[in-house]
Amino acid sequence: MSSHQWSRREFGTAVAGIFGASLLPRLAHAQPAPRWALPNVNGARLNAHLEQLHAFGKNPQGGVSRVAYTDADRDARVLVQQLLRDAKLDVSIDAAGNIIGRRAGSDPSRPCIIIGSHIDSVPEGGNYDGQVGSMGAIEVAQTLGEAGITTRHPLEVVIWQNEEGGLWGSHAATAVLTEAELNTVSRSGKTIREGITFLGGDPAHLERTRRAKGSVAAYLELHIEQGGTLDQQKQQIGVVEGIVGIKQWEVTITGFANHAGTTAMGERRDAMLTAARFTEMVNRVIRATPGRQVGTVGRIQAFPGAPNVIPGKVVLTLEIRDLDGKKIDAMFARIKAESTKVGAMNDTAFEFHQFTDNIPAPTDLRIRAMVAASARELGLSHITLPSGAGHDAQDLAQICPVGMIFVPSLKGISHAPAEYSAPEDITNGANVLLHTLLKVDAAF
Amino acid sequence: MSSHQWSRREFGTAVAGIFGASLLPRLAHAQPAPRWALPNVNGARLNAHLEQLHAFGKNPQGGVSRVAYTDADRDARVLVQQLLRDAKLDVSIDAAGNIIGRRAGSDPSRPCIIIGSHIDSVPEGGNYDGQVGSMGAIEVAQTLGEAGITTRHPLEVVIWQNEEGGLWGSHAATAVLTEAELNTVSRSGKTIREGITFLGGDPAHLERTRRAKGSVAAYLELHIEQGGTLDQQKQQIGVVEGIVGIKQWEVTITGFANHAGTTAMGERRDAMLTAARFTEMVNRVIRATPGRQVGTVGRIQAFPGAPNVIPGKVVLTLEIRDLDGKKIDAMFARIKAESTKVGAMNDTAFEFHQFTDNIPAPTDLRIRAMVAASARELGLSHITLPSGAGHDAQDLAQICPVGMIFVPSLKGISHAPAEYSAPEDITNGANVLLHTLLKVDAAF
Repeated sequence: MSSHQWSRREFGTAVAGIFGASLLPRLAHAQPAPRWALPNVNGARLNAHLEQLHAFGKNPQGGVSRVAYTDADRDARVLVQQLLRDAKLDVSIDAAGNIIGRRAGSDPSRPCIIIGSHIDSVPEGGNYDGQVGSMGAIEVAQTLGEAGITTRHPLEVVIWQNEEGGLWGSHAATAVLTEAELNTVSRSGKTIREGITFLGGDPAHLERTRRAKGSVAAYLELHIEQGGTLDQQKQQIGVVEGIVGIKQWEVTITGFANHAGTTAMGERRDAMLTAARFTEMVNRVIRATPGRQVGTVGRIQAFPGAPNVIPGKVVLTLEIRDLDGKKIDAMFARIKAESTKVGAMNDTAFEFHQFTDNIPAPTDLRIRAMVAASARELGLSHITLPSGAGHDAQDLAQICPVGMIFVPSLKGISHAPAEYSAPEDITNGANVLLHTLLKVDAAF
Repeated sequence: MSSHQWSRREFGTAVAGIFGASLLPRLAHAQPAPRWALPNVNGARLNAHLEQLHAFGKNPQGGVSRVAYTDADRDARVLVQQLLRDAKLDVSIDAAGNIIGRRAGSDPSRPCIIIGSHIDSVPEGGNYDGQVGSMGAIEVAQTLGEAGITTRHPLEVVIWQNEEGGLWGSHAATAVLTEAELNTVSRSGKTIREGITFLGGDPAHLERTRRAKGSVAAYLELHIEQGGTLDQQKQQIGVVEGIVGIKQWEVTITGFANHAGTTAMGERRDAMLTAARFTEMVNRVIRATPGRQVGTVGRIQAFPGAPNVIPGKVVLTLEIRDLDGKKIDAMFARIKAESTKVGAMNDTAFEFHQFTDNIPAPTDLRIRAMVAASARELGLSHITLPSGAGHDAQDLAQICPVGMIFVPSLKGISHAPAEYSAPEDITNGANVLLHTLLKVDAAF
């Protein structure tokens, strides 16, 4: 079986599947791909692997705490390496601590296609975030092997390290980490540098790992939606149009701290009242225009922070996300202008300090069409939607075309023990990943 | 001079001074008190004593950190005892750790009159809060001694301990402290019990200290206003009509924590947005009716408290103060009713847990009239106003008639290094205290 090659006829079929997408209307009348022409993943095995993985960092209340660079993370990565070997891949750990399972392609001159995700979690996270895409990628590779299919491009399954802490593994694989970045202390208490070493990487030689632009043919990632759109709209597959840009600011509101008993209401320069007006105004501005943009005040502290003292200072965070970077900037400009008015109402002042700037990462248009075509040929309902969450795919988007496939999250819950995606949805997602991979392999 | 008695004629004059107050119109035509009839305090000495006191816990940026039960507090209390001895008072420390300077009265059968205040401060507090009234009381006693005046009632100058931490000294002197109260950990890190011992008290025998109802003829306290009313209205003396009641609640708002990127604006149960609407609503409700009531949100925390997570829970404090307890209750009922509406806007819920209930303490009507009359005979402008801050006088109000005299605080600033009262205002206040004391001594 291992000598069997992905035949020219089969490639033709896979490619035909792409063009059902309305994006390419000139080929809309091409013959639909017969479903029997492509193998399907072993859904039972895939979901069993997910079950196996759940044991690492398992919490009594459900879900996992598998924070990057902890023992639970490292132990789970040992299992992952075993699963990759079981799938007949050549396993290695790159200098950045990412796990790589490689399968040769029929044309060694081609750049590789990468499929993958992550297995680290937030503290008290769920059993699906990252894990579905990781086990799905391994399952796809194993299915290919069992079906005796060799892709033209070399195939790499990559399990990135420390996604939740800030996409560190994919970042180290695509960009130059500064000393300051390497010295950043992660949630585990270890620095990024120490964490890389802990996972078997070599932080002193990251250049050996780094992927140059053009060195990767494409990156595909299966992931749970983490939002409620697919679940609400009863859709099986999400064709991700891109990963939103994220800007975050620390907002400092300065008034004057004073005695809450002796200072009349009209004499107060109450920074907390201004913070309240600001928070409501942010909500109003974000919702004032149509679109999927979101704005959040997630953290707040009032100083001095006593029940009997009028806060003289409030520090809070503002976050705005959208697929369109210009829209983020326009909304922020509006918020900033309105802040001045809000602050003037009680003689308080605003300062904004931006501390995050993730630029939007649109997915590749051709790959989007292939994801949609794959869903269609598998008989799966699907819609196009943005990813409101960050993903390793956004780092990869800096060096190659990327595509993402979402499966539904029950009630949109994520980063919590109640996170859930149904086994059949997970299997569907892996099948779409498999079909999309073969289309990309044929077309790129 | 020490054998000189406060003569009957002089008493008559002092008493006449009372009745200028419009509260007692039937005597409004009584002859005004000649100003030369009563001694005045030594303002230079009084302000020099304040300067001396400022050295204890002095901060580089101005003001003092003289937190109760710290070395700065204890050392300052040694100075205070010396000043009391210099003023020819018999000095002792009661079982509760309060400093008492006593002067016999001409009629030993009468209950004592107490004048006093506190010298402990908040962390990074000012040089005037409590300290003006403490040095003022000592100065009044010293002036009486130097003028050869013996009051009918025994006179006690009391420097209460740990006012800022919750009126502990006056509370222990007027009520039974529970074990739980004695085990309360104060800002110093010491329990109240340890603090009392630290200051030379005897927490095992607090019953020796306790003042029964009727055992004190009256309590008078001079204090800085801590608010900006006198300063704004260019008034020299505040006749305090009472100490406001204070109710405080911990308010918990429950929504649902979710991913700030993947959860659309319309699907959010954002507890922070509700907290913002609540804070603005509190401000609106408090200001909706005329009066001097105040309402404050002074502390707030959002959970989990990350820039990229929609807060599922917010805990904040609500405080309402007014001289009228029923008005506090009515405003809270209104706020609670509106909260239900505010919460329903985005499917969030409110819980209120009350943790403070200080009942309002009105001052004695007769003493108010005497304070006003004293100001008038001294040629000082004066208005009647409530105390928005808590004071030891509110504990004393449980066992005897009380009166309070305010002097202006520059710009209303208090509990901060910039706290300031002018030396001449402080001297005026001490003179009003002296005159009021003599009127009370004559009339009670």
